[in-house]
Amino acid sequence: MRANSSRPPHSRGQIALAQPAQVVALGFLGAILVGGLLLASPWANSEGQFTSLVDAIFTATSAVCVTGLTVVDTATYYTLFGKIIIIVLIQLGGLGIMLVASLLSMLLMGKIGTLTRLSSQRESSALSGQDIRTAAKTVLFLSLSIEALTACVLAIRFWLSYDHSLPLALWHGAFHSISAFNNAGFALYSDNLMGFVDDPWISLPISFAIILGGLGFPVLVQLRRYGSNTLKWSMNTRLVLLMTAILLVGGTAFITIMEWNNPKTLGALDPAGRLLAGFFQSVQTRTAGFNSIDIGAMHPATWLGMDVLMFIGAGPAGTAGGIKITTVAVLAFIIITELRGDAAVNVLGKRLSRSVHRQALTVALLGAAAVFAGTMCLVLFTDYSLDRCLFEASSAFGTVGLSTGITADLPDAAKAVLISLMYLGRVGVLSLGSALALRNRKAHYELPKERPAIG
Amino acid sequence: MRANSSRPPHSRGQIALAQPAQVVALGFLGAILVGGLLLASPWANSEGQFTSLVDAIFTATSAVCVTGLTVVDTATYYTLFGKIIIIVLIQLGGLGIMLVASLLSMLLMGKIGTLTRLSSQRESSALSGQDIRTAAKTVLFLSLSIEALTACVLAIRFWLSYDHSLPLALWHGAFHSISAFNNAGFALYSDNLMGFVDDPWISLPISFAIILGGLGFPVLVQLRRYGSNTLKWSMNTRLVLLMTAILLVGGTAFITIMEWNNPKTLGALDPAGRLLAGFFQSVQTRTAGFNSIDIGAMHPATWLGMDVLMFIGAGPAGTAGGIKITTVAVLAFIIITELRGDAAVNVLGKRLSRSVHRQALTVALLGAAAVFAGTMCLVLFTDYSLDRCLFEASSAFGTVGLSTGITADLPDAAKAVLISLMYLGRVGVLSLGSALALRNRKAHYELPKERPAIG
Ligand SMILES: [K+]
Ligand SMILES: [K+]
Repeated sequence: MRANSSRPPHSRGQIALAQPAQVVALGFLGAILVGGLLLASPWANSEGQFTSLVDAIFTATSAVCVTGLTVVDTATYYTLFGKIIIIVLIQLGGLGIMLVASLLSMLLMGKIGTLTRLSSQRESSALSGQDIRTAAKTVLFLSLSIEALTACVLAIRFWLSYDHSLPLALWHGAFHSISAFNNAGFALYSDNLMGFVDDPWISLPISFAIILGGLGFPVLVQLRRYGSNTLKWSMNTRLVLLMTAILLVGGTAFITIMEWNNPKTLGALDPAGRLLAGFFQSVQTRTAGFNSIDIGAMHPATWLGMDVLMFIGAGPAGTAGGIKITTVAVLAFIIITELRGDAAVNVLGKRLSRSVHRQALTVALLGAAAVFAGTMCLVLFTDYSLDRCLFEASSAFGTVGLSTGITADLPDAAKAVLISLMYLGRVGVLSLGSALALRNRKAHYELPKERPAIG
Repeated sequence: MRANSSRPPHSRGQIALAQPAQVVALGFLGAILVGGLLLASPWANSEGQFTSLVDAIFTATSAVCVTGLTVVDTATYYTLFGKIIIIVLIQLGGLGIMLVASLLSMLLMGKIGTLTRLSSQRESSALSGQDIRTAAKTVLFLSLSIEALTACVLAIRFWLSYDHSLPLALWHGAFHSISAFNNAGFALYSDNLMGFVDDPWISLPISFAIILGGLGFPVLVQLRRYGSNTLKWSMNTRLVLLMTAILLVGGTAFITIMEWNNPKTLGALDPAGRLLAGFFQSVQTRTAGFNSIDIGAMHPATWLGMDVLMFIGAGPAGTAGGIKITTVAVLAFIIITELRGDAAVNVLGKRLSRSVHRQALTVALLGAAAVFAGTMCLVLFTDYSLDRCLFEASSAFGTVGLSTGITADLPDAAKAVLISLMYLGRVGVLSLGSALALRNRKAHYELPKERPAIG
């Protein structure tokens, strides 16, 4: 994947897409088409029927973009073949993004050092085959280790406590572990994970895998290398861990308090169960999208708060969606700096590169514009209320997969809107963020000390 | 209003409020309290009853903050005394903001020149009595001229075509002209201005006064001084005129297209009437808040688009609300710059001061947070749907005054939320914007060429 030197120089007015981001954009399209065709085939359907192309493409997009929105009941609609297609698409999509985003963010943060060459054409950033192999090995090792560990715990629990046969327990353990680590949110039960609402042996391992996947590869690598030696952590690692803690605690408190007395959601559980379910549902907004309580029965104000959580997402270069917690953190620190009247934006003891300010702004506002436009389309194309449409659009863009229950009943035009939002939320945010950041690399010399990844 | 030199120096961590902004904040509180007490008295009520304090304070806040949201029918509920209280509050609030914001923005844009002294305490910016008298005279002259002209046209039309007696026509002409120029949106007809939906002799003069008030004092002064000699226009004038044109044309197209076939709104009119009513309603989102068609009968998607228009508002240092079109323009130019990959943000031929970037971001995001929090409260405190609550909160924060028709039926807690939003949208945006801008004045030497007012 070397810089293509025969390429004409691009005009200044053009968005310079980094090559790895282009590979992701095309690779995702290809995987969606192939996966969609396979899922449309009669072998994938448990009744041997062809599936409509819109529904098949929707499911394939939802799997590759690790979203988890579903227009059919995954548990009963698909054959084992169909389910294997889905989980393979999830693993490809999740690992693919993680690998490419990791390469990009290492490139951006100057961690690759001499291995990185930037050609004179600013948009042609090249990585050597060696870089890619090393990064791929580490991503694969970390991902498969966490997935295997989670799968074992889940399989044992399914086997011992839920009357699953050993092969079924292993299959379900593997499927839900992969779906969790990749923040996909697909489940093999018709009520998603509502049957396990008060079982910490299912909820907690899944939450654990989701959170680790959402931290992102650069953070996982630093945690493995430096452990709790916080002095060695990069600004990216500090921001991701801080924001993850804030959002998990804040989200748990918000959902638990709002739904405490709602008999259709948390109200039916004992206090410990309410806390467990509230925590589990808060984790899902970072952006896995399983549900152990009925999202459709929640209070509209809870939906509204979750919209924000889903739009934010989790860490960059991980399996989560959203505009990323680093983007939000940068904006928050800018506002704090303005209110305090300081000259430079200082973040947890380091100065924030000024070029990141405008990038964060651009990613956040264009993301908000995408969700707004998508919501507007859903309000126009359906009779559903604004709160449900906004929730659906936020969930699709954030590649979360939670729904108030309207996805399957949407007209094809609305499904196409969600397909676009899922693709934009997954590929668009990464491409935009990395294009902006790579292009600004020239300013790296004049300006700042360090930069977190945006988008 | 000289700098108080005996005052202890403020710590860096404190928001430095400019003195004029403090005067506005307190003056508005005083006017709301006095006006509220007068409106609560039996002399104000046409049946001689006391009005509940919440409703009276709501109406006084709505008048002083030139919002126009109403919890009672202004036309029938209030006596002539009550109506005069309301129009006096509107004129005080509108002129007061315009005067103070103009002083602040002249100060910021360095237009006062040698008359301005900044003391060593950065937050103590002082204007001489002479400055204030000159500015006040110009503001008064411009405002009263436009109001008088509009009032004449309206009075003649009311007198000749609507069977109003001459005194009634003059009174209604004056009231609606003041209400229009100050972007207040109060009307003396129970159906607001729906009776004049297809009358250009009422719609257009009112639109004209609204737009002029919304341009803001600095723009009016430059237009009067330089006319169409665009080379002499400041960046602020260019941005305000450009954005006003874009929002008027875009808003008219949006509303007209969305409602074209809606029999309860535009659908009942002939094509020319639809265009006139669409234009009139588009003007109202900048942020006057009259209505000539039934807002409650519009499509929810139209509401959603209008939410954005209302949140944006019009020009700074005028009578309009919202986060201001200059704020939005700055954000838009930043995004365009990022997408193009330019180093500096160039706006219509001039370079944008870098210190404005973070100010615009801060004003816009804190404004969005206020609307979000207000909407969340309305969803919690009432059973109304999200689209109506969001519309109501956007309308209150943007001091627009349009409503889907729920204001009067809200519980007191929700009314208190709207009162806070109106005050925040009027006083908070001005104070925040000017505090941020004045505080950053020290950087004026190192940094930029010119700055538009933010907030
Ligand atoms: K997901
Ligand atoms: K208004």
